[in-house]
Amino acid sequence: MANKLDFSLYVVTDSRLVGEKSLESVIQLALKGGATMIQYREKNKEANEIYAKALVLKNMCNKFGVPLIINDRLDIAMAIDADGIHIGQKDLPIAEVRKLFGPHKIIGFTVENEAQVVLSNGQEVDYYIAAPVFRTNTKLDDRGLLGIEGLKSMIKVSKKPVIAAGGISLKNAADVMDLGSAGIVVVNQIMSGEDPKLISEKFIKILKPKGI
Amino acid sequence: MANKLDFSLYVVTDSRLVGEKSLESVIQLALKGGATMIQYREKNKEANEIYAKALVLKNMCNKFGVPLIINDRLDIAMAIDADGIHIGQKDLPIAEVRKLFGPHKIIGFTVENEAQVVLSNGQEVDYYIAAPVFRTNTKLDDRGLLGIEGLKSMIKVSKKPVIAAGGISLKNAADVMDLGSAGIVVVNQIMSGEDPKLISEKFIKILKPKGI
Repeated sequence: MANKLDFSLYVVTDSRLVGEKSLESVIQLALKGGATMIQYREKNKEANEIYAKALVLKNMCNKFGVPLIINDRLDIAMAIDADGIHIGQKDLPIAEVRKLFGPHKIIGFTVENEAQVVLSNGQEVDYYIAAPVFRTNTKLDDRGLLGIEGLKSMIKVSKKPVIAAGGISLKNAADVMDLGSAGIVVVNQIMSGEDPKLISEKFIKILKPKGI
Repeated sequence: MANKLDFSLYVVTDSRLVGEKSLESVIQLALKGGATMIQYREKNKEANEIYAKALVLKNMCNKFGVPLIINDRLDIAMAIDADGIHIGQKDLPIAEVRKLFGPHKIIGFTVENEAQVVLSNGQEVDYYIAAPVFRTNTKLDDRGLLGIEGLKSMIKVSKKPVIAAGGISLKNAADVMDLGSAGIVVVNQIMSGEDPKLISEKFIKILKPKGI
């Protein structure tokens, strides 16, 4: 398991949102603005393309000392020697992922309710992403919203750091952190934002008010 | 690299074609009918579902002493300790797959023209699937058909066994084998056939006329 990770500004990619910009340039700017963790999430591309782009992002993240997490595809994570993998409820079982990826890699797990936290608390996961807290346009699904209360109860039972995802904005980020979140996931605002660096900086000011 | 493999009746799954039957029951019948290799190919399911089904197929294949090959998802192949992986031109690079999967696992590679054979001849691949030889309804794409002549020239330059895929039937299987193919890929006729065992037996009679 990994130690001393800074989850505060956890950026998840969505290449469909970057418009005419390249995903790489957006991530570069987010890193310059203070992003503390990058998750490369790519659902509709061929493996060789994901692999090639993941390699570029890994080099970029390395320069900033920021961990790169790959979504779902453990084979790609292993092939590029990524810092971590992020899996959801419908991906490979956690135990298999830990066995293949090794004891020192970061494994993140998406949880959508308190029961899923309790069920996986004993497993070798390094952090949770709790989602969706608020309404979001990034993931179109019918999962129920956690809201502040749902997030709070998940943080309470969790034995791992919990990162809040789904509709987190500059307006509600402070409230979410006050509950004991280890960080927030930002997708939309950085991916499709006019100035990914500036928006990252604004988030960081809220997440780390004392510059910790 | 793997040795002494029997590629003659190489069955590739397509769960969309099995209708009301289960994929497992179809594969079981194909194995009883003499299938010598099974490739589990699944494109539109979640990883945990592919993983669970792959485990079932692996146990089934083990009982028949037939290798189970997983398509594309090396992570799933590794998680279930499959006998092999089959990758295409748009999957992870061969060298990365070999490095992660180990020296004794089977790696198959799809080739669509002579140039691709020449390019990968020096790489650590155990066999090629040459496709598409004839017209097929299984893969809807715009790749050019190899035809008998195209297949012949690929077999000629290949340093590995070549399995012919695409529109192979009981009528043309003998011709394809006469060119020096190591085997044939069958999808449609076994997946959607009324009697997967009988059709497999019929193919085997053509592929191994002397019962070798």
